[in-house]
Amino acid sequence: MIANNKIEKNSAIVLLSGGLDSTTALAIAQSKGYACYALSFRYGQRHHAELAAAKKVANSFNVVEHKIFDIDLSVFKGSALTDNTIEVPKSTTSGIPVTYVPARNTVFLSIALAWAEVLQVQDIFIGVNAVDYSGYPDCRPEYIKAYQSMANLATKAGVEGQTLDIHTPLISLSKAEIIKLGNNLGVDYSLTVSCYSADQQGRACGECDSCRFRSKGFVEAGIADPTQYI
Amino acid sequence: MIANNKIEKNSAIVLLSGGLDSTTALAIAQSKGYACYALSFRYGQRHHAELAAAKKVANSFNVVEHKIFDIDLSVFKGSALTDNTIEVPKSTTSGIPVTYVPARNTVFLSIALAWAEVLQVQDIFIGVNAVDYSGYPDCRPEYIKAYQSMANLATKAGVEGQTLDIHTPLISLSKAEIIKLGNNLGVDYSLTVSCYSADQQGRACGECDSCRFRSKGFVEAGIADPTQYI
Repeated sequence: MIANNKIEKNSAIVLLSGGLDSTTALAIAQSKGYACYALSFRYGQRHHAELAAAKKVANSFNVVEHKIFDIDLSVFKGSALTDNTIEVPKSTTSGIPVTYVPARNTVFLSIALAWAEVLQVQDIFIGVNAVDYSGYPDCRPEYIKAYQSMANLATKAGVEGQTLDIHTPLISLSKAEIIKLGNNLGVDYSLTVSCYSADQQGRACGECDSCRFRSKGFVEAGIADPTQYI
Repeated sequence: MIANNKIEKNSAIVLLSGGLDSTTALAIAQSKGYACYALSFRYGQRHHAELAAAKKVANSFNVVEHKIFDIDLSVFKGSALTDNTIEVPKSTTSGIPVTYVPARNTVFLSIALAWAEVLQVQDIFIGVNAVDYSGYPDCRPEYIKAYQSMANLATKAGVEGQTLDIHTPLISLSKAEIIKLGNNLGVDYSLTVSCYSADQQGRACGECDSCRFRSKGFVEAGIADPTQYI
């Protein structure tokens, strides 16, 4: 029986890619006192190194559980991150780039929502960022707000009066601010992998959008960049 | 390059479980002139017979493509439809029943959204019904409306000015009305399986919620029930 309030007041699901942002989001959730369930996805991404990073990060934070969910979005093609026939660009392009994975955050949040309902957890953390980012539509505040409204109508928990909160603690921070915040919380960024084209050892290309935002962030934060480059 | 209007004006994705409702939704989409892409899910459901039914239905309608997407929601447990330790009830219970699968329609629509974006399709059909149904929250009109609002903020297509329509042609029809409508469109309901506990041959238990709504619908429609019972 689900009571009309939070059963596990201090539990949260955190979407964890293994990159800099989601790792910082996990650190923030823990610093707020949540017992964290980390959720990663094997979604057909080229860059397997990020899942290895997610495991290391989840271990380092001693999460309650780390689930790696299998969902092969590469069957739809359409993104450089899941389709080997599309090259990951080495320079910033105008508009929404080819690294955009169609509906990715919507799919990931929906699976988090399913898990949240089973766990009776009412808080989901996602490390989306709308400042130093690649212009993906599903990282914007208006999208997250609409997702939360929908989610509260979608579930049995919602019908029974519980509310689901989607936390986006990084959404309005610059990459440098994110790094400073994580650094203050003791995040070991050497465990994280942000590169779209990282090699098997998790070493970064230094050239893709994600690498450039990350590298610039460390410079601007005045913190030594622990990233291993190829 | 995506133009600022529909590229494939007459294409739609139809969520197809292999049951009575989704099959009727497919018939309606085709009758409106859409070239249909059928999408089914191997989501860890007990009742495998519905996927076999979905294949037969997709073939009978000669869809452009029928994709069966693998997503194992049973890893989260929490529903009689995916968890063998929870029994499928033989009589109607009050409230939202144990056959409810957490966030199922949200997950399914999100994957349809991903495919729609890659195909550049702007129409998704889902056979949800809020009349003769089991009280699932993700079958209600307010949920669908909120989903559509969210979806139009989620995608590259949405940012570029395309709108996504989620069609729910059955949402306000009784089961008898759905059956009459499908019958007029030539649907062969003997191909479909609605039962939550169907056997390997697709024969129905005749006792679960889904069987009772279906059976009553045929009686009220005055149409012979082609369902094979165990």
